[in-house]
Amino acid sequence: MVLRWGHRPARDARLTSHVALVARAFGADGIIISDVEDNKIRDTIGKIIENWGGAFTFEMGTPWKKVVRDWKANDGMVIHLTAYGENIQSSDVLGRIKRHGKNLLVVVGSQKVPSEFYYKDVADFNVAVGNQPHSECASLAVFLDRFLEGNELTKAFGNGRMRIVPMERGKKVKIDHEI
Amino acid sequence: MVLRWGHRPARDARLTSHVALVARAFGADGIIISDVEDNKIRDTIGKIIENWGGAFTFEMGTPWKKVVRDWKANDGMVIHLTAYGENIQSSDVLGRIKRHGKNLLVVVGSQKVPSEFYYKDVADFNVAVGNQPHSECASLAVFLDRFLEGNELTKAFGNGRMRIVPMERGKKVKIDHEI
Repeated sequence: MVLRWGHRPARDARLTSHVALVARAFGADGIIISDVEDNKIRDTIGKIIENWGGAFTFEMGTPWKKVVRDWKANDGMVIHLTAYGENIQSSDVLGRIKRHGKNLLVVVGSQKVPSEFYYKDVADFNVAVGNQPHSECASLAVFLDRFLEGNELTKAFGNGRMRIVPMERGKKVKIDHEI
Repeated sequence: MVLRWGHRPARDARLTSHVALVARAFGADGIIISDVEDNKIRDTIGKIIENWGGAFTFEMGTPWKKVVRDWKANDGMVIHLTAYGENIQSSDVLGRIKRHGKNLLVVVGSQKVPSEFYYKDVADFNVAVGNQPHSECASLAVFLDRFLEGNELTKAFGNGRMRIVPMERGKKVKIDHEI
Protein backbone atom coordinates (compact mmCIF):
# COMPACT_ATOMS: atom_id res chain seq x y z
CA MET A 1 0.00 0.00 0.00
CA VAL A 2 1.21 3.51 -0.82
CA LEU A 3 0.50 6.58 1.31
CA ARG A 4 0.80 9.90 -0.50
CA TRP A 5 1.30 12.65 2.08
CA GLY A 6 1.05 16.39 1.55
CA HIS A 7 -0.98 16.47 -1.64
CA ARG A 8 -2.07 20.00 -2.56
CA PRO A 9 -4.92 19.67 -5.07
CA ALA A 10 -4.14 22.75 -7.16
CA ARG A 11 -0.38 22.41 -7.29
CA ASP A 12 0.19 18.66 -7.19
CA ALA A 13 -2.63 17.31 -9.33
CA ARG A 14 -0.52 15.80 -12.07
CA LEU A 15 2.33 14.64 -9.86
CA THR A 16 -0.01 12.88 -7.46
CA SER A 17 -1.79 11.27 -10.41
CA HIS A 18 1.57 10.02 -11.62
CA VAL A 19 2.42 8.72 -8.15
CA ALA A 20 -0.88 6.81 -8.10
CA LEU A 21 -0.30 5.39 -11.59
CA VAL A 22 3.20 4.34 -10.61
CA ALA A 23 1.87 2.66 -7.47
CA ARG A 24 -0.59 0.66 -9.58
CA ALA A 25 1.79 -0.18 -12.44
CA PHE A 26 4.59 -1.19 -10.07
CA GLY A 27 2.58 -3.66 -8.07
CA ALA A 28 1.15 -1.82 -5.06
CA ASP A 29 -2.37 -2.91 -4.14
CA GLY A 30 -3.67 0.59 -3.55
CA ILE A 31 -3.03 4.21 -2.66
CA ILE A 32 -4.20 6.46 0.14
CA ILE A 33 -4.11 10.21 -0.43
CA SER A 34 -4.00 11.27 3.20
CA ASP A 35 -5.66 14.27 4.85
CA VAL A 36 -7.25 15.79 1.73
CA GLU A 37 -9.89 14.82 -0.78
CA ASP A 38 -9.40 15.25 -4.50
CA ASN A 39 -12.13 13.82 -6.70
CA LYS A 40 -10.23 14.60 -9.90
CA ILE A 41 -7.48 12.20 -8.97
CA ARG A 42 -9.99 9.57 -7.90
CA ASP A 43 -11.66 9.92 -11.32
CA THR A 44 -8.36 9.74 -13.21
CA ILE A 45 -7.36 6.54 -11.43
CA GLY A 46 -10.87 5.10 -11.74
CA LYS A 47 -10.75 5.56 -15.50
CA ILE A 48 -7.33 3.91 -15.73
CA ILE A 49 -8.56 0.90 -13.76
CA GLU A 50 -11.69 0.63 -15.91
CA ASN A 51 -9.64 0.68 -19.10
CA TRP A 52 -6.51 -1.17 -18.09
CA GLY A 53 -7.75 -3.46 -15.33
CA GLY A 54 -6.30 -4.77 -12.13
CA ALA A 55 -7.33 -4.63 -8.51
CA PHE A 56 -6.25 -1.35 -6.97
CA THR A 57 -7.84 0.48 -4.07
CA PHE A 58 -8.17 4.24 -3.78
CA GLU A 59 -8.75 6.02 -0.50
CA MET A 60 -8.56 9.70 0.31
CA GLY A 61 -9.02 12.09 3.19
CA THR A 62 -7.98 9.78 6.02
CA PRO A 63 -5.63 11.52 8.49
CA TRP A 64 -2.11 10.18 7.99
CA LYS A 65 -1.69 9.43 11.69
CA LYS A 66 -4.67 7.13 11.61
CA VAL A 67 -3.39 5.35 8.49
CA VAL A 68 0.00 4.76 10.09
CA ARG A 69 -1.44 3.72 13.45
CA ASP A 70 -3.87 1.23 11.87
CA TRP A 71 -1.15 -0.17 9.62
CA LYS A 72 1.17 -0.82 12.53
CA ALA A 73 -1.66 -2.24 14.63
CA ASN A 74 -2.11 -4.85 11.89
CA ASP A 75 1.56 -5.83 12.13
CA GLY A 76 2.50 -3.87 9.00
CA MET A 77 5.74 -2.03 8.45
CA VAL A 78 6.15 1.60 7.35
CA ILE A 79 8.78 2.59 4.79
CA HIS A 80 9.42 6.29 4.32
CA LEU A 81 11.04 7.20 1.02
CA THR A 82 13.33 10.20 1.49
CA ALA A 83 16.60 11.41 0.00
CA TYR A 84 17.92 11.64 3.60
CA GLY A 85 17.50 7.96 4.36
CA GLU A 86 19.69 4.90 4.00
CA ASN A 87 20.87 4.51 0.42
CA ILE A 88 19.09 1.59 -1.27
CA GLN A 89 22.19 0.84 -3.34
CA SER A 90 25.08 1.26 -0.89
CA SER A 91 23.40 -0.02 2.30
CA ASP A 92 21.71 -3.30 3.12
CA VAL A 93 18.41 -1.60 3.99
CA LEU A 94 16.41 -3.47 1.33
CA GLY A 95 17.63 -6.81 2.64
CA ARG A 96 16.66 -5.86 6.20
CA ILE A 97 13.19 -4.82 5.04
CA LYS A 98 12.69 -8.07 3.13
CA ARG A 99 13.82 -10.22 6.03
CA HIS A 100 10.92 -8.96 8.13
CA GLY A 101 8.47 -10.23 5.50
CA LYS A 102 5.77 -7.80 6.61
CA ASN A 103 3.18 -5.92 4.60
CA LEU A 104 4.54 -2.54 3.61
CA LEU A 105 3.04 0.90 3.74
CA VAL A 106 5.30 3.03 1.53
CA VAL A 107 5.08 6.72 2.42
CA VAL A 108 5.93 9.35 -0.20
CA GLY A 109 5.88 13.01 0.64
CA SER A 110 5.42 16.00 -1.56
CA GLN A 111 6.13 19.22 0.29
CA LYS A 112 8.52 19.04 3.25
CA VAL A 113 7.35 16.29 5.59
CA PRO A 114 6.98 16.68 9.39
CA SER A 115 10.17 15.64 11.19
CA GLU A 116 8.33 12.91 13.10
CA PHE A 117 8.09 10.95 9.83
CA TYR A 118 11.76 10.03 10.23
CA TYR A 119 11.35 8.50 13.68
CA LYS A 120 10.07 5.17 14.77
CA ASP A 121 6.52 6.13 15.63
CA VAL A 122 6.16 6.50 11.87
CA ALA A 123 9.00 5.10 9.77
CA ASP A 124 10.37 1.66 10.48
CA PHE A 125 12.88 2.41 7.74
CA ASN A 126 13.89 5.61 5.93
CA VAL A 127 14.98 4.63 2.45
CA ALA A 128 16.79 6.85 -0.05
CA VAL A 129 16.66 5.97 -3.73
CA GLY A 130 19.95 7.80 -4.02
CA ASN A 131 20.78 10.82 -1.88
CA GLN A 132 20.19 13.43 -4.55
CA PRO A 133 16.98 15.43 -4.96
CA HIS A 134 14.73 14.10 -7.73
CA SER A 135 11.12 12.89 -7.81
CA GLU A 136 8.72 10.94 -5.64
CA CYS A 137 7.50 9.14 -8.79
CA ALA A 138 11.01 7.92 -9.46
CA SER A 139 11.68 6.93 -5.85
CA LEU A 140 8.49 4.94 -5.64
CA ALA A 141 9.07 3.21 -8.97
CA VAL A 142 12.65 2.18 -8.25
CA PHE A 143 11.88 1.12 -4.68
CA LEU A 144 9.03 -1.13 -5.86
CA ASP A 145 11.02 -2.40 -8.85
CA ARG A 146 13.82 -3.49 -6.54
CA PHE A 147 11.58 -4.75 -3.76
CA LEU A 148 9.52 -6.88 -6.19
CA GLU A 149 12.63 -7.81 -8.20
CA GLY A 150 11.14 -6.67 -11.50
CA ASN A 151 8.28 -9.15 -11.48
CA GLU A 152 5.72 -6.36 -11.17
CA LEU A 153 6.44 -5.33 -14.77
CA THR A 154 5.07 -8.52 -16.26
CA LYS A 155 2.08 -8.90 -13.95
CA ALA A 156 -1.28 -9.45 -15.70
CA PHE A 157 -3.97 -6.88 -14.89
CA GLY A 158 -7.28 -8.68 -15.27
CA ASN A 159 -10.73 -7.28 -16.05
CA GLY A 160 -9.65 -4.28 -18.09
CA ARG A 161 -11.01 -3.25 -21.48
CA MET A 162 -7.62 -2.99 -23.12
CA ARG A 163 -4.10 -4.23 -22.94
CA ILE A 164 -0.94 -3.36 -24.80
CA VAL A 165 0.76 -6.01 -26.90
CA PRO A 166 4.45 -5.12 -26.60
CA MET A 167 6.19 -4.63 -29.95
CA GLU A 168 9.53 -3.66 -31.39
CA ARG A 169 7.89 -0.93 -33.49
CA GLY A 170 4.51 0.76 -33.51
CA LYS A 171 1.53 0.53 -31.17
CA LYS A 172 -0.75 -2.41 -30.65
CA VAL A 173 -3.65 -2.51 -28.21
CA LYS A 174 -5.91 -5.49 -27.74
CA ILE A 175 -9.51 -4.86 -26.72
CA ASP A 176 -10.38 -7.70 -24.39
CA HIS A 177 -14.01 -6.96 -23.68
CA GLU A 178 -16.55 -4.92 -25.52
CA ILE A 179 -18.71 -2.93 -23.13
CA MET B 1 21.68 12.21 -22.73
CA VAL B 2 17.94 12.60 -22.23
CA LEU B 3 15.59 14.24 -24.74
CA ARG B 4 12.32 15.50 -23.32
CA TRP B 5 9.82 15.86 -26.15
CA GLY B 6 6.48 17.66 -26.08
CA HIS B 7 7.01 19.90 -23.08
CA ARG B 8 4.17 22.40 -22.65
CA PRO B 9 5.45 25.15 -20.32
CA ALA B 10 2.16 25.92 -18.56
CA ARG B 11 0.93 22.38 -18.13
CA ASP B 12 4.11 20.34 -17.74
CA ALA B 13 6.34 22.62 -15.67
CA ARG B 14 6.65 20.40 -12.63
CA LEU B 15 6.70 17.09 -14.47
CA THR B 16 9.43 18.24 -16.83
CA SER B 17 11.42 19.55 -13.83
CA HIS B 18 11.08 16.13 -12.25
CA VAL B 19 12.17 14.43 -15.48
CA ALA B 20 15.26 16.66 -15.56
CA LEU B 21 16.06 15.97 -11.89
CA VAL B 22 15.64 12.25 -12.47
CA ALA B 23 17.95 12.43 -15.49
CA ARG B 24 20.62 14.11 -13.36
CA ALA B 25 20.20 11.93 -10.26
CA PHE B 26 20.13 8.70 -12.27
CA GLY B 27 23.37 9.31 -14.13
CA ALA B 28 22.50 11.01 -17.42
CA ASP B 29 25.00 13.67 -18.48
CA GLY B 30 22.39 16.19 -19.54
CA ILE B 31 18.92 16.95 -20.81
CA ILE B 32 17.56 18.59 -23.93
CA ILE B 33 14.06 20.08 -23.78
CA SER B 34 13.32 19.99 -27.49
CA ASP B 35 11.40 22.52 -29.58
CA VAL B 36 10.45 24.94 -26.80
CA GLU B 37 12.24 27.23 -24.39
CA ASP B 38 11.36 27.39 -20.71
CA ASN B 39 13.60 29.54 -18.58
CA LYS B 40 11.90 28.51 -15.36
CA ILE B 41 13.00 24.92 -15.80
CA ARG B 42 16.50 26.04 -16.75
CA ASP B 43 16.63 28.08 -13.51
CA THR B 44 15.29 25.22 -11.38
CA ILE B 45 17.91 22.83 -12.70
CA GLY B 46 20.63 25.47 -12.49
CA LYS B 47 19.91 25.98 -8.81
CA ILE B 48 19.97 22.24 -8.14
CA ILE B 49 23.37 21.91 -9.83
CA GLU B 50 24.74 24.90 -7.93
CA ASN B 51 23.62 23.42 -4.61
CA TRP B 52 24.09 19.72 -5.16
CA GLY B 53 26.89 19.62 -7.72
CA GLY B 54 27.73 17.40 -10.63
CA ALA B 55 28.29 17.98 -14.32
CA PHE B 56 24.97 18.14 -16.13
CA THR B 57 24.17 19.98 -19.34
CA PHE B 58 20.91 21.75 -20.07
CA GLU B 59 19.78 22.64 -23.58
CA MET B 60 16.40 23.84 -24.80
CA GLY B 61 14.63 24.90 -27.95
CA THR B 62 16.54 22.69 -30.41
CA PRO B 63 14.17 20.96 -32.88
CA TRP B 64 13.90 17.29 -31.97
CA LYS B 65 14.67 16.17 -35.53
CA LYS B 66 17.98 17.97 -35.40
CA VAL B 67 18.85 16.45 -32.00
CA VAL B 68 18.11 12.94 -33.27
CA ARG B 69 19.89 13.46 -36.59
CA ASP B 70 23.03 14.86 -34.93
CA TRP B 71 23.02 12.08 -32.33
CA LYS B 72 22.87 9.37 -34.96
CA ALA B 73 25.49 11.14 -37.11
CA ASN B 74 27.83 10.80 -34.11
CA ASP B 75 27.23 7.07 -33.96
CA GLY B 76 24.85 7.36 -31.02
CA MET B 77 21.79 5.21 -30.44
CA VAL B 78 18.26 6.41 -29.74
CA ILE B 79 16.09 4.71 -27.11
CA HIS B 80 12.41 5.67 -27.04
CA LEU B 81 10.68 4.95 -23.74
CA THR B 82 7.05 4.02 -24.37
CA ALA B 83 4.50 1.70 -22.80
CA TYR B 84 4.00 0.18 -26.29
CA GLY B 85 7.59 -1.01 -26.67
CA GLU B 86 9.45 -4.20 -25.77
CA ASN B 87 9.05 -5.01 -22.10
CA ILE B 88 12.30 -4.37 -20.23
CA GLN B 89 11.56 -7.25 -17.86
CA SER B 90 10.18 -9.98 -20.13
CA SER B 91 12.26 -9.34 -23.25
CA ASP B 92 16.02 -9.21 -23.84
CA VAL B 93 15.88 -5.63 -25.12
CA LEU B 94 18.20 -4.26 -22.42
CA GLY B 95 20.85 -6.85 -23.27
CA ARG B 96 20.64 -6.00 -26.96
CA ILE B 97 21.03 -2.29 -26.18
CA LYS B 98 24.04 -2.92 -23.97
CA ARG B 99 25.76 -5.14 -26.51
CA HIS B 100 25.96 -2.23 -28.95
CA GLY B 101 27.93 -0.22 -26.39
CA LYS B 102 26.89 3.08 -27.95
CA ASN B 103 26.10 6.42 -26.38
CA LEU B 104 22.39 6.64 -25.67
CA LEU B 105 19.89 9.38 -26.31
CA VAL B 106 16.88 8.43 -24.20
CA VAL B 107 13.69 10.02 -25.52
CA VAL B 108 10.75 10.59 -23.16
CA GLY B 109 7.50 12.01 -24.42
CA SER B 110 4.81 13.88 -22.61
CA GLN B 111 1.74 14.30 -24.78
CA LYS B 112 1.14 11.73 -27.50
CA VAL B 113 4.29 11.41 -29.59
CA PRO B 114 4.37 11.47 -33.43
CA SER B 115 4.13 7.95 -34.86
CA GLU B 116 7.51 8.31 -36.58
CA PHE B 117 9.14 8.11 -33.12
CA TYR B 118 8.49 4.36 -33.15
CA TYR B 119 10.33 3.72 -36.41
CA LYS B 120 13.95 3.43 -37.19
CA ASP B 121 14.59 6.95 -38.44
CA VAL B 122 14.13 7.85 -34.77
CA ALA B 123 14.09 4.94 -32.32
CA ASP B 124 16.71 2.24 -32.53
CA PHE B 125 14.78 0.57 -29.70
CA ASN B 126 11.33 1.15 -28.21
CA VAL B 127 11.51 0.16 -24.56
CA ALA B 128 8.56 -0.30 -22.21
CA VAL B 129 9.13 -0.11 -18.47
CA GLY B 130 6.12 -2.33 -18.15
CA ASN B 131 3.19 -2.12 -20.56
CA GLN B 132 0.86 -0.23 -18.25
CA PRO B 133 0.33 3.54 -18.32
CA HIS B 134 2.26 5.36 -15.59
CA SER B 135 4.81 8.17 -15.65
CA GLU B 136 7.74 9.31 -17.75
CA CYS B 137 9.64 10.07 -14.51
CA ALA B 138 9.27 6.46 -13.44
CA SER B 139 10.17 5.04 -16.86
CA LEU B 140 13.30 7.13 -17.07
CA ALA B 141 14.38 6.29 -13.53
CA VAL B 142 13.90 2.53 -13.85
CA PHE B 143 15.44 2.40 -17.33
CA LEU B 144 18.57 4.23 -16.12
CA ASP B 145 18.69 2.23 -12.86
CA ARG B 146 18.71 -1.01 -14.81
CA PHE B 147 20.99 0.22 -17.60
CA LEU B 148 23.57 1.51 -15.10
CA GLU B 149 22.99 -1.44 -12.76
CA GLY B 150 22.32 0.74 -9.75
CA ASN B 151 25.76 2.34 -9.69
CA GLU B 152 24.29 5.75 -10.50
CA LEU B 153 22.78 5.91 -7.00
CA THR B 154 26.14 6.04 -5.27
CA LYS B 155 27.87 8.36 -7.73
CA ALA B 156 29.65 11.38 -6.19
CA PHE B 157 28.47 14.74 -7.49
CA GLY B 158 31.44 17.09 -7.16
CA ASN B 159 31.52 20.87 -6.80
CA GLY B 160 28.21 21.32 -5.03
CA ARG B 161 27.59 23.36 -1.91
CA MET B 162 25.84 20.57 -0.06
CA ARG B 163 25.51 16.86 0.17
CA ILE B 164 23.28 14.55 2.15
CA VAL B 165 24.84 12.20 4.67
CA PRO B 166 22.54 9.16 4.55
CA MET B 167 21.14 8.16 7.95
CA GLU B 168 18.78 5.69 9.52
CA ARG B 169 16.82 8.50 11.16
CA GLY B 170 16.66 12.25 10.72
CA LYS B 171 18.26 14.60 8.21
CA LYS B 172 21.92 15.44 7.86
CA VAL B 173 23.38 17.75 5.23
CA LYS B 174 27.07 18.54 4.94
CA ILE B 175 28.04 21.93 3.58
CA ASP B 176 31.18 21.30 1.53
CA HIS B 177 32.08 24.83 0.49
CA GLU B 178 31.17 28.16 1.90
CA ILE B 179 30.42 30.61 -0.87
